[in-house]
Amino acid sequence: MATPTGRSPELRHDPVSNRWVVFSPARAKRPSDFKSKSPENPDPNSSSGNSCPFCIGNESQCAPEIFRFPPDLGNPNWKIRVIENLFPALSRTGEYPSEDQQRHQDHTAGGRSLKGLGFHDVVIEAPVHSVQLSDLGAGEIGQVLLAYKKRIEQIATFDSIKYIQVFKNHGASAGASLSHSHSQILALPVVPPAVSTRLDGTKEYFEKTGKCSLCEVRAKELIIDESTHFISIVPFAATFAFEIWIVPKDHSSHFHELDSDQAVDLAGLLRLMLKKMSTQLNNPPFNFMIQTSPLRVEESRLPYSHWFLQIVPHLGGVAGFEIGSGCHINPVFPEDAAKVLREVNVNLPG
Amino acid sequence: MATPTGRSPELRHDPVSNRWVVFSPARAKRPSDFKSKSPENPDPNSSSGNSCPFCIGNESQCAPEIFRFPPDLGNPNWKIRVIENLFPALSRTGEYPSEDQQRHQDHTAGGRSLKGLGFHDVVIEAPVHSVQLSDLGAGEIGQVLLAYKKRIEQIATFDSIKYIQVFKNHGASAGASLSHSHSQILALPVVPPAVSTRLDGTKEYFEKTGKCSLCEVRAKELIIDESTHFISIVPFAATFAFEIWIVPKDHSSHFHELDSDQAVDLAGLLRLMLKKMSTQLNNPPFNFMIQTSPLRVEESRLPYSHWFLQIVPHLGGVAGFEIGSGCHINPVFPEDAAKVLREVNVNLPG
Repeated sequence: MATPTGRSPELRHDPVSNRWVVFSPARAKRPSDFKSKSPENPDPNSSSGNSCPFCIGNESQCAPEIFRFPPDLGNPNWKIRVIENLFPALSRTGEYPSEDQQRHQDHTAGGRSLKGLGFHDVVIEAPVHSVQLSDLGAGEIGQVLLAYKKRIEQIATFDSIKYIQVFKNHGASAGASLSHSHSQILALPVVPPAVSTRLDGTKEYFEKTGKCSLCEVRAKELIIDESTHFISIVPFAATFAFEIWIVPKDHSSHFHELDSDQAVDLAGLLRLMLKKMSTQLNNPPFNFMIQTSPLRVEESRLPYSHWFLQIVPHLGGVAGFEIGSGCHINPVFPEDAAKVLREVNVNLPG
Repeated sequence: MATPTGRSPELRHDPVSNRWVVFSPARAKRPSDFKSKSPENPDPNSSSGNSCPFCIGNESQCAPEIFRFPPDLGNPNWKIRVIENLFPALSRTGEYPSEDQQRHQDHTAGGRSLKGLGFHDVVIEAPVHSVQLSDLGAGEIGQVLLAYKKRIEQIATFDSIKYIQVFKNHGASAGASLSHSHSQILALPVVPPAVSTRLDGTKEYFEKTGKCSLCEVRAKELIIDESTHFISIVPFAATFAFEIWIVPKDHSSHFHELDSDQAVDLAGLLRLMLKKMSTQLNNPPFNFMIQTSPLRVEESRLPYSHWFLQIVPHLGGVAGFEIGSGCHINPVFPEDAAKVLREVNVNLPG
């Protein structure tokens, strides 16, 4: 059936996400008309000053600090703090599981269980309440990325940790419980499902073509922008409308291989993507996630393990079809979203 | 780390959902204190009467009807209507794909694509705007379930359809665009990811134990209620807080094997679960999904393919961690949720 946008529905499968997505333009506005209905306009008067634990001067209201930047503990003029999450999803205290404890327990209900040991940290990205990540300069955002790297390298020394998920929730409806700009690092004792699925997908592609699927993402119609070391695209089978991936041009399995130059370069492209998304989509709530490889991934898997940064604006909710089937409906074709984002003009000072 | 509820975090893996879930009571209220912050109190004055296309008398505002119940086309006093979705995610017109068209196209971007042909239907569950599904009697809800069955049997005759997802979105934040009580049927030309993952998980369990994992869900602490033919439980590794499964006691691979007696029996237990959830959780938005087997599932897979009905209240959103890792954080242990739901008293007339 032809649709108002002249396109028929299509199902797509991307080797990276390794799942089918339904592209359904009949349910869409024109790609250029997408706007968030619940923009996150940070209210500088809300929860700032004395009441926000992440604000400079309120350090005592937080869980313990792990490190700060600049790295002088006595320096009250910090730019970035990495702290423990006051309400951690996993417990860092107690014994770290031995191989014996790690072994999955059989359970009467037929399932398996594992002690919830791991790390759940918070990265406070700026000392001032009203400053959002994309307000910072590329050099400053680069320091945030290097703080992720440093913390990952610390956690990676624990044998029990299998995967480290770095993510940012911006806006209440995207899961941010505090509006002060921050991101989170969750270190897990298992390789999570999306990561296993991705590795299976990129393996299949590698076995068929001899190539890494993420080294190959260069389809002109999907590219938004590029920097010296990175490319930003809308993926071929984007799960969400206006989803963006920032992919290293050179093959690299782990985010924490990033060096300082690359960090500033990535920061610049990340800032540009966040500004473009905010301009085009009316400052939507969003998440970004660093999609990296398991810490101790087998060497044979390295040729098809390629990290990237995924940005997802929240423009619609997840409903029964998605929960039930694991299949998402995306009303915007990736090449249309890429074109719109490519053509947005933003003003980037600094 | 001990938590206010005295429990430590735990990771669980259920053979059916076949993924890890993090149970994190530190982030929880007491299980009995969970309430929806955005209850769906249907406003009988909103979008009713002339403006709701699903209301009796407004049939001409809808996409074409497929069938009605009672099954007399001339009868204006219908109880249930099955109609086409006015904004279908998949296209029913055009040629149904031949095996040739079905073959996945290789795409320059490295992915595969498939014509978006399928069916997307709506089941209007009652003629009157203010009546919710759980307001109906068990016999009437049974007729809704039999309407699903009838429509599935019709669609199953198309070779191109691989999976049929029945789902209901209740409440705007759970994805319902119209408040008039309805559910949807989406017939796909592929087996969706969650179904493949489930079959892999139940296969692994079957190979290890010789048993169907869903025939085995009888752990006393997870049971909420039961009827003649069905059992309702909170699954061992529930992805969402207060998630409920209604499982046939006898092994059955496909929902559409349901007979009329079983339909009324299931309807009674479904109604009880919806009432309990509404009472305990302050009438939350919710989804339910029928988790059945692929239409032409191989005979060798039948012993571990067992359908069930999944109910998910919307109590919190999905954020960066869940999108990135595919791993969910559930603040309520299943045995605690089951106990709370077991003990809720509801008033069920009719």
